[in-house]
Amino acid sequence: MKLYETATAPNPRRVRMFLAEKGLLDQVECIQVDIAKGENLTPDFVAMNPMKKVPVAQLDDGTCLAETMAICRYIEASHPETTPLLGNDAKEQALIEQWLRWIEFYFMTPTGMGFQHTSGYFKDRMKVFPDYGAECLNQVREFMKFLDKHLEGKDYICCDRFTAADINAYTTIAFARVVKIRIGDDQANLKAWFDRINSRPSAKV
Amino acid sequence: MKLYETATAPNPRRVRMFLAEKGLLDQVECIQVDIAKGENLTPDFVAMNPMKKVPVAQLDDGTCLAETMAICRYIEASHPETTPLLGNDAKEQALIEQWLRWIEFYFMTPTGMGFQHTSGYFKDRMKVFPDYGAECLNQVREFMKFLDKHLEGKDYICCDRFTAADINAYTTIAFARVVKIRIGDDQANLKAWFDRINSRPSAKV
Repeated sequence: MKLYETATAPNPRRVRMFLAEKGLLDQVECIQVDIAKGENLTPDFVAMNPMKKVPVAQLDDGTCLAETMAICRYIEASHPETTPLLGNDAKEQALIEQWLRWIEFYFMTPTGMGFQHTSGYFKDRMKVFPDYGAECLNQVREFMKFLDKHLEGKDYICCDRFTAADINAYTTIAFARVVKIRIGDDQANLKAWFDRINSRPSAKV
Repeated sequence: MKLYETATAPNPRRVRMFLAEKGLLDQVECIQVDIAKGENLTPDFVAMNPMKKVPVAQLDDGTCLAETMAICRYIEASHPETTPLLGNDAKEQALIEQWLRWIEFYFMTPTGMGFQHTSGYFKDRMKVFPDYGAECLNQVREFMKFLDKHLEGKDYICCDRFTAADINAYTTIAFARVVKIRIGDDQANLKAWFDRINSRPSAKV
């Protein structure tokens, strides 16, 4: 498998961390795409992913898979010998998916939209609404309060063990530095959880 | 399983259609939640889903599952005897997930945000940015053009058969009437596909 990705971007990081937790990262060829320079807008890249986003996985048969969680699901299903990160049974799979979607919709997406609409980083390729971006950042702060309360007495976000939900929330908090949002001094549960995930070898990739 | 849902809202419809395709709809007790009246904002409802959204599935052991696709994954994994709608193998599962996410991010979410930010339907409970809403509706129109091209020569969105991707795109197009977006006269592939899905018994539930 080849992984077209951007080392500094949050979504590719989710896939690298997922691969590292599975012990599979060294089996994948990572190819850097410079999104600041627009390398994701070229005809060759758009043929791989019409949505023009990183990461994209190219399977050995040539099939291109876009979307972070589609790539993670492929890795999980094609390597059943590795530790499951998306759940062992129907109920776990559903609870992890619930959390993945909450993290995606109420945390990762508003962080990204807050960044794009307040910084103008991609203003050459999208319309920017700074007031909407500021409201997105309020949502990010609200979700961090919610997560801090949820983590009281818990080591991990769900299923009493490390899952993809921890990867996606961790990488979002790390990314939120670009919008100057950090864990509050009063958010002790969130801080302890973040440090716990941050100490894993997979957090370094 | 109990399903807390709103008959007129698009996300619950996705779950009902998924259940109907599995032949399981009559095994589920559907309980109506009036979101216009704010029945989803009560302490009892928030205890089931802190994100205050429908649908929520309550399993027989009392566990509450929020999020449309988490509920659908639970149904798929707990009824392996039924026709798979989320893929047979790793590659299919990943391709369907890619499409589900494209439909969610570039079609369903902008339709919902376009509706909420241009109509003010929920203005008692959120900040409204009409210019951002108008831009969302442009994204909806762009995705419909993309989908029309993609469907050339195809009966279904992916994997050469009916999947959850067809459910989610179909219910989004049906919902898009609230923002006065309809399939264009020049979008013959999209129209033929919509009519194909619309003729299934599950489209009536």
